[in-house]
Amino acid sequence: MENLEEKIENEKDTNKKEELLYQLFKKNKEETFVFFKEKPIAEIIDFFYDLENEEILEFIRMFEIQRQGDIMTELDRDIQHWIFNNIEIIEFADIFKYVSSDIRADFYQSLEKDEQSKLLPFLEKKTRENVISLSSYHPETAGGVMVTDFATIMINMNVKQALDKIRKDSPSKKMIYYIYVVDKNMKLLGFVTLKDLIMADFSDDISAIIHDEYTFADVDEDQETVARKIEKYDLIAIPVLNSSGQLLGIVTHDDAIEVIRAEQTEDLERIMGITQSPEELGYLETTSFQHFKKRVGWLVILAIVGIVSGMIIHSFEETLQTLIILALYMPMLADTGGNIGSQSATVVIRALALGEVRLRDWLRIIFKELKIGLMLSLILGAIAFIKILYLSFDTTVPPEFTLFKVALVISIALSLQVVSSALIGTSLPLIVRSFGGDPAVAATPAITTIVDITGLLLYFTTATILLGI
Amino acid sequence: MENLEEKIENEKDTNKKEELLYQLFKKNKEETFVFFKEKPIAEIIDFFYDLENEEILEFIRMFEIQRQGDIMTELDRDIQHWIFNNIEIIEFADIFKYVSSDIRADFYQSLEKDEQSKLLPFLEKKTRENVISLSSYHPETAGGVMVTDFATIMINMNVKQALDKIRKDSPSKKMIYYIYVVDKNMKLLGFVTLKDLIMADFSDDISAIIHDEYTFADVDEDQETVARKIEKYDLIAIPVLNSSGQLLGIVTHDDAIEVIRAEQTEDLERIMGITQSPEELGYLETTSFQHFKKRVGWLVILAIVGIVSGMIIHSFEETLQTLIILALYMPMLADTGGNIGSQSATVVIRALALGEVRLRDWLRIIFKELKIGLMLSLILGAIAFIKILYLSFDTTVPPEFTLFKVALVISIALSLQVVSSALIGTSLPLIVRSFGGDPAVAATPAITTIVDITGLLLYFTTATILLGI
Repeated sequence: MENLEEKIENEKDTNKKEELLYQLFKKNKEETFVFFKEKPIAEIIDFFYDLENEEILEFIRMFEIQRQGDIMTELDRDIQHWIFNNIEIIEFADIFKYVSSDIRADFYQSLEKDEQSKLLPFLEKKTRENVISLSSYHPETAGGVMVTDFATIMINMNVKQALDKIRKDSPSKKMIYYIYVVDKNMKLLGFVTLKDLIMADFSDDISAIIHDEYTFADVDEDQETVARKIEKYDLIAIPVLNSSGQLLGIVTHDDAIEVIRAEQTEDLERIMGITQSPEELGYLETTSFQHFKKRVGWLVILAIVGIVSGMIIHSFEETLQTLIILALYMPMLADTGGNIGSQSATVVIRALALGEVRLRDWLRIIFKELKIGLMLSLILGAIAFIKILYLSFDTTVPPEFTLFKVALVISIALSLQVVSSALIGTSLPLIVRSFGGDPAVAATPAITTIVDITGLLLYFTTATILLGI
Repeated sequence: MENLEEKIENEKDTNKKEELLYQLFKKNKEETFVFFKEKPIAEIIDFFYDLENEEILEFIRMFEIQRQGDIMTELDRDIQHWIFNNIEIIEFADIFKYVSSDIRADFYQSLEKDEQSKLLPFLEKKTRENVISLSSYHPETAGGVMVTDFATIMINMNVKQALDKIRKDSPSKKMIYYIYVVDKNMKLLGFVTLKDLIMADFSDDISAIIHDEYTFADVDEDQETVARKIEKYDLIAIPVLNSSGQLLGIVTHDDAIEVIRAEQTEDLERIMGITQSPEELGYLETTSFQHFKKRVGWLVILAIVGIVSGMIIHSFEETLQTLIILALYMPMLADTGGNIGSQSATVVIRALALGEVRLRDWLRIIFKELKIGLMLSLILGAIAFIKILYLSFDTTVPPEFTLFKVALVISIALSLQVVSSALIGTSLPLIVRSFGGDPAVAATPAITTIVDITGLLLYFTTATILLGI
């Protein structure tokens, strides 16, 4: 047995490591428990990836109750539900007490009304009140993300009294770095750090070392704004206050990272025209139909708007009949426009999101994209010209035109398409943002559709004018 | 003056606030300094957005030297360079001493060789050695991101001795939460938290409360892996070790957030076929030519690969001559394929990045996308059918075909394109990842080009078979 555990400790390859761990688990559950006893929760959760739900439950039950709560905190929502439905409610309530307060609220909100009524009576009064209170906030606000697990001291204390209180309160508190100074109504007056307390003398007054200027979040503030504050001020945690300035909870730096990750997925999906839903499950847990519903919306809208492109093409039907060769290069125009427009949009959306540019810089942005578009149009126009000469070498061309002239005209049209797509791709997010909307919304499919329309207009107009059709 | 400052404090609108601050600055620089004296650095940096470089320098000089270093730490690289070039080297060296160690190394690496030689002699020995040492690491590794600012204690101490040492060492150290326990060779033995020290008795041995199982980063580890560890284990900081287990520095949670943000921008740009460069400046600071260079690469490659689409179209030239109507709908096929392929790719790339799926889940992923593709193909095929009947109502159709039949065939081809694009969009990132590559690389333009080719083949093959051309 020793051998297998040593092999596991030394195994670098995560896949092999998981296989070995699973072998160990099948052989001797006790030994597996001993192996994981002091490990970080994240590694236990990794281990669960290959286990059946029944095995997960069996393993969790080997731990003492507080750690069971820690593990439950990090489990996927669907496994939490499975456990809820497959053990006695009284055992679930015992574990639930030790689950992190923000996760407890999230889980409670995800239950049906009858399930909520089933759970509540079995919770301790303190837990029950906390769950109900936190569940009253919208999940994507500071109130919906915060934990109610923080350390407080009073302003009229000195350092020794403060340290004594912290020692008394702390065993149940996970992370203490900022100690919040409150009055008897829980109104936040400021904070001190553990470092401040250690550096000071026991007899120093808290009022002498308190930081009374601090950043905070409002309980109804959007979670992304809160995450940005944590990021901007390099905070480990940010206090959450109500309108009376009372301290309700804290949002921690690790929650900020989760919010930022989720925000990135949202942005990327929005750019691709995939709709968001409030309760986001993982990719595999989301059913095909749910995936379909998220994606079909924008695709249908754009298919309908695409009628406009269709109408433009049809109005030039005779032109196309005359010069079939023009039809052959419509896809090239569509593709190039879409790629360039999406690139431009992406770059601008990111620059806006990262605070590298502001809306008032719009003129500089447009001007820059114009220059970039011109450079790209020269290269891509030249390549297109050579491509057309090579591909359409033996294509029928009516006698009044030459291949050279037609190729030149198509290349010019492509160059115009490049510049125009770059400008459109840049402008759309800025316009949307100036109306207070999310610049990322459906950027790629919307821009693809728009540059189609403008591209076709440019194409046929150029051909008609320069070829005298 | 009081009035203006109160107005500023109460002003919620950030734009108005900045205008007022600038007014205050123009009127009375002293008062502005007093206003900002205790504010977080991040707000001072915001204030600088509207100032000229000379004004920024003037303002920084009003602070005491340590705070000048703090401010310099957060300035944009180009402003740091401007200051370097516009003040006496000896003054710059004085401020540089108090700049954060990781930023010092980054700045030093960004200097030309002669500028480096100009600066080094003016640095204190300790600073000079630190800068040279940190600059030896690749910027995007743990070594390149870490700070050398951390607290250490010896294992043979008791809690009282540990606290005494921390008090003695700490004034210059920014953030203390983990205290690292090292031996006389700086080999990392474990850590304790400030909370642990406070909860213990003065006479307790460090060896009794030390956490000897800990997560760490290797000095050459990629910064994104380090950020993921910080995220996974909810760390405030992670120790960075060399191959001998010696503690070289720490990477903090706020650096993790910066790395994650940068990673997201990279992913998004890669998906759009925009090349990365190691030294990333902000959008406006990057010249148009630099933007052009980042984007032209993939566009040219795809323009050349696009010859294949062109060849396919040309080989079906006669078919198109017969049924000009087929040419009219080629853009619709190109667009739909591109949008759907990009959507699928995006969803898979994100799911892989967030750890929601693993490479071994590929069969489940493909199967799911197949179902989603089928559902989308039904809807979009139906819409296409109606679109064609409406748009091509009076298009010339050769007598042996009916509009109804042609519309049906094109719609079927589109449906096949939808399913095939979804599968291709899904598979490409998985295939790239299975070869150890970055699944996001040029996803959108690459997929657009590929589904063009397959789409055209599907289109013409379907038309040829079903219409008997």
